Amino acid sequence: MTKAGIAGATGYTGLELTQLIARHPELEFGWITSENSAGKRFSDVHFSNLHLPLIPLADAYDRADEVGVVFLCLPHGESIEAAKRFAAAGVRVIDLSADFRLTTSDDYVRWYGKPHAAPGLLDSFVYGLSEINRGQLVGAQLIANPGCYPTSVNLGLYPLAKAGWLGDKVIVDSKSGVSGAGRTTKLPYQFVEANENLQPYNVGYRHRHIAEMELVLHGATNGSAPKARFTFTPHLLPTNRGILSTMYVTVPDGVTEAQIRGLYEETWGNEPFIQLLPAGQLATLRHVTHTNRTAISITAVDPDGAGRDYIIVTTLDNMIKGASGQAVQNYNIAVGLPETAGLL
Amino acid sequence: MTKAGIAGATGYTGLELTQLIARHPELEFGWITSENSAGKRFSDVHFSNLHLPLIPLADAYDRADEVGVVFLCLPHGESIEAAKRFAAAGVRVIDLSADFRLTTSDDYVRWYGKPHAAPGLLDSFVYGLSEINRGQLVGAQLIANPGCYPTSVNLGLYPLAKAGWLGDKVIVDSKSGVSGAGRTTKLPYQFVEANENLQPYNVGYRHRHIAEMELVLHGATNGSAPKARFTFTPHLLPTNRGILSTMYVTVPDGVTEAQIRGLYEETWGNEPFIQLLPAGQLATLRHVTHTNRTAISITAVDPDGAGRDYIIVTTLDNMIKGASGQAVQNYNIAVGLPETAGLL
Amino acid sequence: MTKAGIAGATGYTGLELTQLIARHPELEFGWITSENSAGKRFSDVHFSNLHLPLIPLADAYDRADEVGVVFLCLPHGESIEAAKRFAAAGVRVIDLSADFRLTTSDDYVRWYGKPHAAPGLLDSFVYGLSEINRGQLVGAQLIANPGCYPTSVNLGLYPLAKAGWLGDKVIVDSKSGVSGAGRTTKLPYQFVEANENLQPYNVGYRHRHIAEMELVLHGATNGSAPKARFTFTPHLLPTNRGILSTMYVTVPDGVTEAQIRGLYEETWGNEPFIQLLPAGQLATLRHVTHTNRTAISITAVDPDGAGRDYIIVTTLDNMIKGASGQAVQNYNIAVGLPETAGLL
Amino acid sequence: MTKAGIAGATGYTGLELTQLIARHPELEFGWITSENSAGKRFSDVHFSNLHLPLIPLADAYDRADEVGVVFLCLPHGESIEAAKRFAAAGVRVIDLSADFRLTTSDDYVRWYGKPHAAPGLLDSFVYGLSEINRGQLVGAQLIANPGCYPTSVNLGLYPLAKAGWLGDKVIVDSKSGVSGAGRTTKLPYQFVEANENLQPYNVGYRHRHIAEMELVLHGATNGSAPKARFTFTPHLLPTNRGILSTMYVTVPDGVTEAQIRGLYEETWGNEPFIQLLPAGQLATLRHVTHTNRTAISITAVDPDGAGRDYIIVTTLDNMIKGASGQAVQNYNIAVGLPETAGLL
Repeated sequence: MTKAGIAGATGYTGLELTQLIARHPELEFGWITSENSAGKRFSDVHFSNLHLPLIPLADAYDRADEVGVVFLCLPHGESIEAAKRFAAAGVRVIDLSADFRLTTSDDYVRWYGKPHAAPGLLDSFVYGLSEINRGQLVGAQLIANPGCYPTSVNLGLYPLAKAGWLGDKVIVDSKSGVSGAGRTTKLPYQFVEANENLQPYNVGYRHRHIAEMELVLHGATNGSAPKARFTFTPHLLPTNRGILSTMYVTVPDGVTEAQIRGLYEETWGNEPFIQLLPAGQLATLRHVTHTNRTAISITAVDPDGAGRDYIIVTTLDNMIKGASGQAVQNYNIAVGLPETAGLL
Repeated sequence: MTKAGIAGATGYTGLELTQLIARHPELEFGWITSENSAGKRFSDVHFSNLHLPLIPLADAYDRADEVGVVFLCLPHGESIEAAKRFAAAGVRVIDLSADFRLTTSDDYVRWYGKPHAAPGLLDSFVYGLSEINRGQLVGAQLIANPGCYPTSVNLGLYPLAKAGWLGDKVIVDSKSGVSGAGRTTKLPYQFVEANENLQPYNVGYRHRHIAEMELVLHGATNGSAPKARFTFTPHLLPTNRGILSTMYVTVPDGVTEAQIRGLYEETWGNEPFIQLLPAGQLATLRHVTHTNRTAISITAVDPDGAGRDYIIVTTLDNMIKGASGQAVQNYNIAVGLPETAGLL
Repeated sequence: MTKAGIAGATGYTGLELTQLIARHPELEFGWITSENSAGKRFSDVHFSNLHLPLIPLADAYDRADEVGVVFLCLPHGESIEAAKRFAAAGVRVIDLSADFRLTTSDDYVRWYGKPHAAPGLLDSFVYGLSEINRGQLVGAQLIANPGCYPTSVNLGLYPLAKAGWLGDKVIVDSKSGVSGAGRTTKLPYQFVEANENLQPYNVGYRHRHIAEMELVLHGATNGSAPKARFTFTPHLLPTNRGILSTMYVTVPDGVTEAQIRGLYEETWGNEPFIQLLPAGQLATLRHVTHTNRTAISITAVDPDGAGRDYIIVTTLDNMIKGASGQAVQNYNIAVGLPETAGLL
Repeated sequence: MTKAGIAGATGYTGLELTQLIARHPELEFGWITSENSAGKRFSDVHFSNLHLPLIPLADAYDRADEVGVVFLCLPHGESIEAAKRFAAAGVRVIDLSADFRLTTSDDYVRWYGKPHAAPGLLDSFVYGLSEINRGQLVGAQLIANPGCYPTSVNLGLYPLAKAGWLGDKVIVDSKSGVSGAGRTTKLPYQFVEANENLQPYNVGYRHRHIAEMELVLHGATNGSAPKARFTFTPHLLPTNRGILSTMYVTVPDGVTEAQIRGLYEETWGNEPFIQLLPAGQLATLRHVTHTNRTAISITAVDPDGAGRDYIIVTTLDNMIKGASGQAVQNYNIAVGLPETAGLL
């Protein structure tokens, strides 16, 4: 058994992690931290039966040697210092924030509007999109866990991108449950505002998550195909959890639906956490919520299958495959456990 | 047409009032106020097509003569000063806060834990439970609009209380949609916390709204019957609106179900906003949401009708009959309009 | 006052109509029909305070002369016979089904897969998209009320289509509340299946509602622009009501955002039921639910506004502007009442 | 590993069971049955990644020897024949229907209104309320899994009943998520009917589940205390899952809150699936949904603790502790596995 620390345990990803760790055959709780609720027990701040005390992050630094892995569930920007400290102490770090997802400080500046505070660390981190970067994740000490939206888009489009069939313009119409906003008390996420409502936000070529789509999908082709341009429209959905991305692509002339299905089968057919749906079925949130799976469906726009337009729908649970579940999956890969340990 | 002012227009009762005023045949908009959003338009802070500017309350005092009635939708405690100012200016005041609902300063101290800031004004206000105090409301200049929970309880139990059949112990198990908490950003009212959840709070003999139940129902008997003791258990329900109160009463020996139904028919049978359900039907939220109605159902606990235990269920829309709709109903009564004007 | 009949009153559009009629200054109830619940009262089959008896359609034919207008809320396919009968009796008919929306029997066969049962009647009906066909609606005796999805798409894209700026490929990603499926007991619409879920269905170039988009938007240009091809992806949303359509268009080179906004302002600026949102605001369901309005927002994909790609979002209440509200609006136009009568 | 069969796998309890079996360390799938969907795979009828074929029950009888345990998730009334057949084949049977919960055929007739089809089998079954009947469950071959409502009531009141402190009149106000109604397509469970609604049903002394409350709680005292009379009011709650029971009891004179808390601590303090909440916390659905736990809170009605009235709130997940989870818990007990196996 390895002890796991959680830095920033009182948000929704922290809560989900506590449930995954409780169920994991090879992980047990070390310490858990919270700045605002230090001194309280976890069950004082969540509807939970975990009575572990919350300690400040400063105390966790002193107790770094008690844990074998630390999951950073801190706000964006606050993982950098923590990652440095735990890395220096030789603890494996899996960071669920956006701080180490981009590979260059230029990209970081472009999307986050300020210089990165530890640019030298950027290339020490492996981008933890498990199915795509599995090779680099084996033995990795520092892992940057992907964003929830990009995971849904990247797993859904990677086969097309790799084949150079993605086209030059991709429309991604995504819908996310409210937990994607974090455990925040802002007005738009209040029950009465979000319930019986649907709200687009940050539409167009604006959302920071586009950077991770470009990183993975532009990179998939080794430069042989044009770089697709992503129009990304997220919507706030009145559910607790789940992301559904409806993606519109145009494949090259001559590519058939059978070829596309073959490509997906070849790429994802053996993945334990990817569920390719048969023709005629469409991915829904319910295929994946409360699981670590991604469901993918492929539909030709034209009923006769003659055209070049396709609709790829992917779904995942933003708290699990989009955050804490993929973090555990990455841990399993890094330390050589069965990839599905604790995730069924 | 009379111009209406709304003080504190950006909360949920204010929002509901704007919709009722827009539809009312004899009311039109005067000014609307907001301290936090003064300078913006109403449509900047709500999903609304009302583009009226929001002004600070201080400006509204200067413009008191522009309106014939002001609805106070201010936080509890903040209506007192406003009521004094508008009353002094001769404007009709309908206060939706709790500030003037109790009739004695002793009661206020007991339930609100501090002295009332204008005890001398308390008996200038008519308690605006329309169906019960209609007589006093005609021509009233100062009206204290009842609380949402007490309205559901008082309309449901008043016939029994008046007849002296209420018994000495009444259990009120209430469930309210989240808008009852106001447009606040506290964590328990966050979508992810409230959705797919049900949460009791302030249970037992603790909630301030019990004071209004005692006021109306103890007062109904003219002292001839024992004063019922109310156990009140509110629950936070994952809906936007609506209150359902399930009430358990024990009537005196010898009182029959037919007598009880007759009593309710006699008391409420001609009320335009009370819907007595026939035997076998139970009141639900959907009977009343988005209306000014209260639905009432009566069920004998024993299928053979032999016992003395009854379950009275009442439902209403907390934003309408529980707040803004009853405020407009009271306005209609006060100025002599048809009571249903603008409320169908 | 004119008496209104409702044929097929127990579905959701029928329910909504009863509420609109109750509030309308110039309409009152005639008869209401139901085949399955004939003999019961309306309040026996809905959470309603309308106690009117339900009669079979056959009886309504005999009592055609009692009403001045009949709203047909019958299942698709069943309006044809009823329309013939009531038209023959000289009663104004507003049909909420799809039976008379298409203008040629060829189109009907193409999308509905069978011949129309009364092709000769097709061109007697005016397609009741109020804002676009207002001229033809004045005095109309036979009105085909548009579909809910097409209304959201057509009002959102009509200005671009008319200007010839719609492009040759339009992606429409729509999301609809569950009432859009009607008051049916099929498994996908059961609470546990639809709640905390999001489900695409009939995606691509398959849904019958595309026919109405082509009808209106191909027709808007008088043939001078290429006919846009619509990819239409509806999703079942876990809300009771509301449609949100996110539409992706590419305008011709040289057309600026300011020109587009000007075009919409010119086309829709004076419409009482269209709410054009200012730059920076996005249309949400809450802008329009429980109203007869359509909200429209326009956003350039590129933050710098340099590109040709735009995202048009429209929202409406599928029960009101998408069905019963537009039916009443059409009635108002047909008989010369103020268009907003009973609809505020 | 033991193979488990599921008879009636396509309802919600069947679906939940498939998820629990997939995660259980000592169970694996044998066959699964469905009459309506025989020939399809499980993933054809549920949003699931389980592709096992569904077979008719008749085939399962022939393949009884392939499984070590069968979970009967059949409609009430249909378990009797199946239980006989599998019991005769020597297979361990855990029946999730109501068919074998009552101990006498008289009770069955009284509450179900018809004679039991196999009264001789009634006392071969152990009533599987795990925490109370653990002793009898060890080694049991035939287990009748309790109802969801009674489990919430019985676990919440058993300590008081055992101590003879329950009083003669108990009011149980329960609220259940819609999955409690099963995977049925009846109108009240349609999304639009149940969402934004709350509906009481079968209120008073009418619901069959009262029989299980009387069975357990009247039996707890060994006849030394008066038999409490239960008034039971279930409500249909707009959530997918979860039961919350708010229970009103009056303890004997002289019994203190400290004594009551001590009693619960002594009775339930070591139970892995019972979470006693500290004073000041109230049980909510979120404490327990997606877990096998029951949360219990105790609150004195009087803030000063002087009175005899208490409010006991219990919550559980009706699909897990109220059905499939408790079934697995009972299996674990019966075969001598750790009680929590597969249930964390």
